[in-house]
Amino acid sequence: MSKSSETRPLGVALAGFGTVGSGLGRLLVENADIIRRRTGRDVAVRAVLVRDAHKAREVPLPPGAVLTTDPARLVNDPGIDVLVELMGGIDAARGIISAALEHGKHVVTANKALLAEDGLALFRLARRKRRILRYEASVAGAIPVVQALKESLVGNRIESLMGILNGTSNYILSEMTSSGVEFGEALRQAQELGFAEADPTLDIDGHDAAHKLVLLIRLAWGVDYPYAALAVRGIRGMAALDIRFAREFGYRIKLIGQARLAAGGTGAAGDAPLRLEAGVFPALVHHTFLLARVGGAYNALRVDANAAGPLFFHGRGAGSLPTAGAVLADLMAVAREERPNNTGFAESELERAAIVPPEDWRSPYYVRVMVEDTPGVLRDISGCMAAEGISVAQMIQKAGDGTSGVPLVFMTHETTARAMSGALGRAADAGLLREPAVYYRVL
Amino acid sequence: MSKSSETRPLGVALAGFGTVGSGLGRLLVENADIIRRRTGRDVAVRAVLVRDAHKAREVPLPPGAVLTTDPARLVNDPGIDVLVELMGGIDAARGIISAALEHGKHVVTANKALLAEDGLALFRLARRKRRILRYEASVAGAIPVVQALKESLVGNRIESLMGILNGTSNYILSEMTSSGVEFGEALRQAQELGFAEADPTLDIDGHDAAHKLVLLIRLAWGVDYPYAALAVRGIRGMAALDIRFAREFGYRIKLIGQARLAAGGTGAAGDAPLRLEAGVFPALVHHTFLLARVGGAYNALRVDANAAGPLFFHGRGAGSLPTAGAVLADLMAVAREERPNNTGFAESELERAAIVPPEDWRSPYYVRVMVEDTPGVLRDISGCMAAEGISVAQMIQKAGDGTSGVPLVFMTHETTARAMSGALGRAADAGLLREPAVYYRVL
Repeated sequence: MSKSSETRPLGVALAGFGTVGSGLGRLLVENADIIRRRTGRDVAVRAVLVRDAHKAREVPLPPGAVLTTDPARLVNDPGIDVLVELMGGIDAARGIISAALEHGKHVVTANKALLAEDGLALFRLARRKRRILRYEASVAGAIPVVQALKESLVGNRIESLMGILNGTSNYILSEMTSSGVEFGEALRQAQELGFAEADPTLDIDGHDAAHKLVLLIRLAWGVDYPYAALAVRGIRGMAALDIRFAREFGYRIKLIGQARLAAGGTGAAGDAPLRLEAGVFPALVHHTFLLARVGGAYNALRVDANAAGPLFFHGRGAGSLPTAGAVLADLMAVAREERPNNTGFAESELERAAIVPPEDWRSPYYVRVMVEDTPGVLRDISGCMAAEGISVAQMIQKAGDGTSGVPLVFMTHETTARAMSGALGRAADAGLLREPAVYYRVL
Repeated sequence: MSKSSETRPLGVALAGFGTVGSGLGRLLVENADIIRRRTGRDVAVRAVLVRDAHKAREVPLPPGAVLTTDPARLVNDPGIDVLVELMGGIDAARGIISAALEHGKHVVTANKALLAEDGLALFRLARRKRRILRYEASVAGAIPVVQALKESLVGNRIESLMGILNGTSNYILSEMTSSGVEFGEALRQAQELGFAEADPTLDIDGHDAAHKLVLLIRLAWGVDYPYAALAVRGIRGMAALDIRFAREFGYRIKLIGQARLAAGGTGAAGDAPLRLEAGVFPALVHHTFLLARVGGAYNALRVDANAAGPLFFHGRGAGSLPTAGAVLADLMAVAREERPNNTGFAESELERAAIVPPEDWRSPYYVRVMVEDTPGVLRDISGCMAAEGISVAQMIQKAGDGTSGVPLVFMTHETTARAMSGALGRAADAGLLREPAVYYRVL
């Protein structure tokens, strides 16, 4: 893109306007100021491709966008710089992505199935046409794992990837673990709450996690691990009994996507060529591992790398706004078109922040005071708190050791640092404190 | 950089050759193949600047590098494209970074103190000279938080940052928590083990975490929060007593760097201009939070953002190779010079991965079999395992409910899936199993 083109908005065509597409439309409005500050440009949706132009829609189209059912309308429009593909499925999505690249458009997609099963041809086409093809939202939703592997960890030899990549399965296993219900009941609950599809096959049989794992393997090692060659086992029919037994050993059961270098196949100088062990399967994870702590519909990825050591990423793996935020980051990368981007902001100079004085910080507090063990001391200290409007949530009183008095420990509701130091000042002035009070914020 | 320049190595000057510099030297050799595959270029260290050229060094210089004590030697060499500043400190580092930018070199640095206290002038200079100034290693070591805020989360309005940004303090607090020792003793142990400096002021009084927080605030909100204006409180002299009391309420005490939008100051359209509440302080963190689980010398960052929701990043915050890996990623970003980078590899076509067949996967296993409650059944099942070379680490036998037999649950040492299915096949053939066996890998 030439310099002058940067002042005009980035023209976007949206293929698909479901959960993620409408989330993107919302973010483009709500975060318009941030987009402009970060990239120096606006992002304008010119056209939205849908199957049925007459269907009633709850979410308004992005301002200025036209609705169309004709893919050719998108790829022939010279005002469109990027196609965002959010239709899902394989054939139609491949068709429109290919056509967009052929017509010199960049592409942003969240389509893990297409990229896993048929991505190599699309990467080849993008390379030939020198176009950008980005897909952060296709793996682990809001968690920037594509970027981490593609850019942040490039100086590392990746040793293994281990992830919770399917939120539906993780939700079901979390429910089976916390409430002891059997698989069928947990699946039914997940379907009622919208965490599982009416046909949950892709999720609970491991295929969705497997699609994501194929993409991660490409990013980590730069090799193609054919989706069809991946060993995949899901969680369908798992027994609550085994979750209970696993707990007795100190483990949780999680659906894991894992890929790691096989012994004697690291590809390093002097070793055998790179060989991978990869698959999706339910596994026991020791409760002290961060991966065991991933609950509900969250996703997480652990990466082990020869320089970084172990890294752990955790966040929302799906949902309208989390996924749309990842799509938007890809769009903004295209809008920036990769020039020095040192601060992450396009403005010439950083403004000074407006600062909240520490005494106005709001927070619950932990407070320990050492007092005489006399009648009324608790009333007096509490009075100091109340005089500053501080409300106590929990309190512990301990027997003292006779030298420095009795410890009183309070957990307060949210208050300000000013109120807290005011209350403790009152207590000190009243001669109630045997030692200076100790207090910490509670997160 | 013109196209032809990409085939020649990226010329690097290294200022400082201590822990991180020598780690970088090691990675440039060990991961040379990866660097070439990822960027299409080699990275060559041309010169290393040190204070004393005659000091004995344990680590060899990078191949082809000359040792020098003259900063001018670095910035005047047309074969040097990038200066990597790893000297630390303020004045000399600022001098050489400024000179390098003035002479048209890109800069990579890990110097959080310099960037926090005096970074705006350097960013201004880099912008004027159109040079890249990267600093991933300056915050949270191996964890790619700079990249996440600068590129992955750009479509989000950041609501808050909350991090464990100083490994020394976290190590001391972890020791006080796990072994109940007082602060002075924990500090002494940390110093003996090399987790704390002889003069620990920067770490335990919160200044190091504060430097990092200033950088994170700039990246998240694009504003300058002057280091001198930041409220900073460290962990010096913290009482083991308070750590114990906090535990009774279900909390851990952590040194936290936090910045968040003040109420009525989000900067969003229709709201008051952006106002920040920011500081470094010890705080109670509920044990169910992932931040409470960050142990030893690890770092972590939680980001809350309006599209992504909560994100959590965890990894090594310091150390030779973890930090050097982050420096190397910055160098490789310069080497790539930001063109379409879809797969993260420069090669034209991905090779097919060499694949370990699932039956050869090595792992410990959890196995549950339902058997008749008869004498010798445990011996028989164990015999099937032993015949396949499987060694049992733990075993539980439960009373059965009389219908489907008695459950025997094994945790094995590492073995292969082939051996496991072999053993279970033997058990089935011998008529020992009342139901198909259930087995899962143990991570």
